Amino acid sequence: MNAHTRCVWPLIAVLAVGAVEAQAQPQPQSQSKTAAGETAAAPKQSPPRTVGEILAATAPSDWRALDPENTLYLELPLGRVVIELAPAFAPQHAANIRTLVRQKYFDGLAIIRSQDNFVVQWGDPENKRPLAPARDKLPPEFTAAAANRPFEPLPDRDGYAPEVGFSEGFPAARDESRGEAWLTHCYGMVGAGRANEPESGNGAELYVVTGHAPRQLDRNIALVGRVVKGMELLSTLPRGTGPLGFYEKPEQYVPIANVRMAADLPLADRERLEVLRTDTASFRAVVEARRNRRDDWYLVPAGYVDVCNVPIATRPPS
Amino acid sequence: MNAHTRCVWPLIAVLAVGAVEAQAQPQPQSQSKTAAGETAAAPKQSPPRTVGEILAATAPSDWRALDPENTLYLELPLGRVVIELAPAFAPQHAANIRTLVRQKYFDGLAIIRSQDNFVVQWGDPENKRPLAPARDKLPPEFTAAAANRPFEPLPDRDGYAPEVGFSEGFPAARDESRGEAWLTHCYGMVGAGRANEPESGNGAELYVVTGHAPRQLDRNIALVGRVVKGMELLSTLPRGTGPLGFYEKPEQYVPIANVRMAADLPLADRERLEVLRTDTASFRAVVEARRNRRDDWYLVPAGYVDVCNVPIATRPPS
Repeated sequence: MNAHTRCVWPLIAVLAVGAVEAQAQPQPQSQSKTAAGETAAAPKQSPPRTVGEILAATAPSDWRALDPENTLYLELPLGRVVIELAPAFAPQHAANIRTLVRQKYFDGLAIIRSQDNFVVQWGDPENKRPLAPARDKLPPEFTAAAANRPFEPLPDRDGYAPEVGFSEGFPAARDESRGEAWLTHCYGMVGAGRANEPESGNGAELYVVTGHAPRQLDRNIALVGRVVKGMELLSTLPRGTGPLGFYEKPEQYVPIANVRMAADLPLADRERLEVLRTDTASFRAVVEARRNRRDDWYLVPAGYVDVCNVPIATRPPS
Repeated sequence: MNAHTRCVWPLIAVLAVGAVEAQAQPQPQSQSKTAAGETAAAPKQSPPRTVGEILAATAPSDWRALDPENTLYLELPLGRVVIELAPAFAPQHAANIRTLVRQKYFDGLAIIRSQDNFVVQWGDPENKRPLAPARDKLPPEFTAAAANRPFEPLPDRDGYAPEVGFSEGFPAARDESRGEAWLTHCYGMVGAGRANEPESGNGAELYVVTGHAPRQLDRNIALVGRVVKGMELLSTLPRGTGPLGFYEKPEQYVPIANVRMAADLPLADRERLEVLRTDTASFRAVVEARRNRRDDWYLVPAGYVDVCNVPIATRPPS
């Protein structure tokens, strides 16, 4: 294969979960080698471009601000997690979560579960805080109508769905024969726990994917959003030693100071973040750069990319 | 769909990275719901069986002990990580790692990198400890001959390889047209870092996958084994804030007390672990149970399983 540019993939992996240093180049470390190598070779001018080069060349219109009415701040002891809701796929869940947040339902609750290579989950450890005026049951928004829905398909075949791609900033799948689209359980995606009854999910107990994509959950539970910043505050939590990774003792719970809608905070207290639009040529170039790594380190470009292996970059506002 | 048995998938996710409670049933938690539900419904007697039922019904011959000459113990401040080497795929790397371990190369070194949704990596932070008598360059064991190699193919199509499956306990891929087989970069797999030169990997700097499978690394770097116990000690390490997730300050390094071959420890100090053989009807039944979840919680069985979404169970010796 031809080698073209310096190694950038580790940077991209950082970006996948909300780093804001989209334009930073990876610095070679003083160690002799990284997991997948490192190089101080000068960038070469020929295409294809690296993800870093693609992001550096984006136009302001390639980026969007987060909608404050769809942005949650989950305040943990070590910092803030920023979650973007996906009302286009789960409008009633998003509305109920906004209601829960505004009635301060989550304040003082806790992270109660951390299962390795699976999920971290939070809610009411004692399951007795009243939900009203929020609703306790919701329609199972596990799939949504595909018609008229923005969808940027990947050409790459997927095992779990007839088609995968991106829809307004989220990884998604589509089955046109059934007229359905749905969000996919990739790392960092946030969903609403439910019991056996499909209507029992309400957004009061949320989980985030912290391991290899559990795509078998797709279409079985409502995904409601995605962590866009602070993922590492969730993914590094001690694993619970009880069944299913639940914490066994109350003192192991990780306290939630509060959850707020960005819209309810003064401007000065909001995160300043932009997200790369997924319906742009720049994003398509990122996808291709991830599909076929071309830097000096790679010997064999994969020629394929998993929908859960494409980062959706964020950055501070330009 | 028909619902048959109680929910077991969260148990399986635990098993995927080395829990030894293969026969334990998940206990419903007192919370109202889990990420993917919970149920106290009584198990029903009809097939298909759950993974827990399959494991409970295994024969002793379905399990194998770890070979002490291919088992590493990585001793960290919070406990022991057990790694099974894969000499069938990377014999010279395995041999060099044994040499490094026996010359106590790793003792007192450190974990130097933790990049969210990617890898944790360890080695010599100062890159100056002598390697000899271990070798400093090795042939690039990125693929191996497929001929005469045990391989249990999955029928499930894969995007990154013509064929995927399991080979003697490891997730693997195969391209019969090229006569090649290789290990796949699933969660918990361990590889040998290298610089740009394909021969520059030697096993002195190792990494473990801690996020969504970075399958683009397949065939580009030597995978040398898999974490079979203690994965949570690596996956929860604080993420490094430097480029590529490297720790920026020496005080952030996680010290490695020592690394030992199981064969070099007294029997009383060895881990007592058995691993489910991947060439058994029991394992094939586990794969099918993961491909199509049948418990009361699931509405839509996936009908597909990713090679990186199949746990390889461990248990204490019977």
